[in-house]
Parts: sequence; C-alpha cells; structure tokens
Amino acid sequence: MKYCNQCGSNLTQIVPAGDHLLRHVCEHCNTIHYQNPKIIAGTIPEWENKILLCKRAIEPRYGLWTLPAGFMENNETTIQGALRESMEEANAQLNNLSLFCVFSIPHISQVYMMYRGELHNGQATPGTESLDLDLFSEQDIPWDEIAFPVITETLKLYFKDKSSGNFSTHTGDIIRENNQLIISHN
Amino acid sequence: MKYCNQCGSNLTQIVPAGDHLLRHVCEHCNTIHYQNPKIIAGTIPEWENKILLCKRAIEPRYGLWTLPAGFMENNETTIQGALRESMEEANAQLNNLSLFCVFSIPHISQVYMMYRGELHNGQATPGTESLDLDLFSEQDIPWDEIAFPVITETLKLYFKDKSSGNFSTHTGDIIRENNQLIISHN
Repeated sequence: MKYCNQCGSNLTQIVPAGDHLLRHVCEHCNTIHYQNPKIIAGTIPEWENKILLCKRAIEPRYGLWTLPAGFMENNETTIQGALRESMEEANAQLNNLSLFCVFSIPHISQVYMMYRGELHNGQATPGTESLDLDLFSEQDIPWDEIAFPVITETLKLYFKDKSSGNFSTHTGDIIRENNQLIISHN
Repeated sequence: MKYCNQCGSNLTQIVPAGDHLLRHVCEHCNTIHYQNPKIIAGTIPEWENKILLCKRAIEPRYGLWTLPAGFMENNETTIQGALRESMEEANAQLNNLSLFCVFSIPHISQVYMMYRGELHNGQATPGTESLDLDLFSEQDIPWDEIAFPVITETLKLYFKDKSSGNFSTHTGDIIRENNQLIISHN
C-alpha cells in the first residue's frame, strides 16, 4: 500500500495517536488505512452418510480437494456467504446450516467459518472454480490430496464428532512457527 | 475509494472477468481492490455471578455501556483479539475463553465474535476508551443504556443460557430493513 485511495497522496507508516500499531496513514487528508483479517465462509455438505468435496480448478492448490468456501463479501451474513460459495463452486443448495468450526490462521490473517448442512436432494455439479466433485464417506476421503490444512482439520473434527454422535461448535488456531504449523482446537 | 493504493492511478468500478460483483479496479496496474467484512472480537467477562460492562469514552455511543470488543487486527487469532480488546478497554485478563456467539450485521459489514470467560481475580480498571466500568448482575444491567443492539442481544442470550444452566454457541443475524432491525439467532 503506497498511495491514499481517497486523495492519491503518498502514504507514510506511523503509529497514530492513541493507537499501538503501525498504520498506513495519509498525512494529506488524514485517512488511516486499516487492514484487517478476512473471513472465509464455507460448508460441509452432508448427504446419506457422505460429504461433498470439490476438486479445485483454480490456484492455489489446483487439482486438490476442498470443501466449498470462499471470501465473505460485504453486505452478506456468514451463512449467506457460505451458501453463495456452495452454489458458486458446486451448484449446491444446503438446508439447516449450523456453525461447525471457526479457525483463525493469523499468519495469513484469515478466519475460516465452516457450517455443516444437508445437501438438498444430494444434488451438486461442478461450478467454474471446480474441476470435479464427489460425495465421500469417511474411509474414502483423499487425505493426501486435501488443498489446505484448515480443511484437513475441519474434516478430521467432523468425522470425530460424527462417530461420537455429538456435534458441537469448535474453535481453533492454525499458527505457523519456524515453518511448522501448530494446530490447536477444542 | 478513488485511487489505486498500489500505483496511484484513478480507479474504475467494473465487474472483473469471472466475478459477479462490482469492484474497484485499477486499469493501469490491474489490481482489484476487494472490500470485505470486518470482525469485531470481544468478551463477556464473568465474575461471581456478575459480568463486566464498560462505559464508552469514545464515539459512537459515548457514555453508553458495552462489552469489551473491537476490530480484530491482522496477524492475531480471534481469541487474541478478544483478549487484547479486554485489556485495552478494561485492563482485564480473562481465563478459559469459549465462543459464545457470532452475529453478522450485513448493513455495516461486520461480524461480532464474542467469547465468555472468567475475569481474572475479578480485577478491572477503565482503559483509555472507557469512562467507567462495573460488574453487573442480571437485574442491574442498564438495558436502556446499552451502546449497540448486538450487545443487547448478546447479553439477553447470555442470561437466558445462564438461567437454563446450559451454555452453547449461538449464531445470528442483525439485519436492517426499512429502518428496522430484524434480529434472528439460534
């Protein structure tokens, strides 16, 4: 970030009065340009003891499997975002969503919010961001071809809860330290 | 948003290829400037059958009561953000946080994530953003002087769960239609 998006002047990095972090500040029009984490909203589509995964047709992780999920947009709710992404990536409608997990990934300033829900009529077809999709039972999940660690953790938690017969809402962190991922959750 | 923060050129609003929403796009350096919802992370500090509220020393809603909460920063987890805000606004440490509610407020593109937790030693003092603070039992909550509808809803849900003896994680929406707020939650 080099220029003020309000007046076009050069930005400087300073800690504003009363603040404690360096911000990009415009000393011409006094706008402070905050940068904040983004929410990734998505779903775990359930159908007849299986869940839907999508094979990515876009980078990053082209060709690997993931749950329908993407950046939440302004002026929508987290559930609307999760449903929209499921429609865009898998032409999938879902019913009865409930929040399954919230994972913070601070090194990329993202927060994943994943809802599980019933895949309407078990129907889905690949959207433009998906090469393929399929319904997987636990033993068939392609664990070595999952696109993102947060999706692997979400799936592991999901099948753990499923086998216990008791779904709850989980929160967790995926933190990178010394090039290793440290994963914690309740 | 009028100027590209990367190269300083004028921005135009177009729907980029493969997208479905108007974005601010720089046709000089091809940067797409996405805008996404922000997370407000906060806490419900509990101590001896009471909870901590802070009286706001800043606008908006100067002089009204609220729970410690504020914008989540890049490179932190939601819990780190909630703890940081509790420290900034009330010099309060909390233990054993658990996610209590997630509220989407689409007309202001905010998502509140509120954690309940034990106020360490029952100790708190006003931070620079608070005029005052106090521990309130349910019957003493200043319901007519709460700063934001999302905080009122969070408090109502909290005392409902508390009286039932069973806390769970709630999700909900606060939607503005025709100048009225429509509130829904599980």
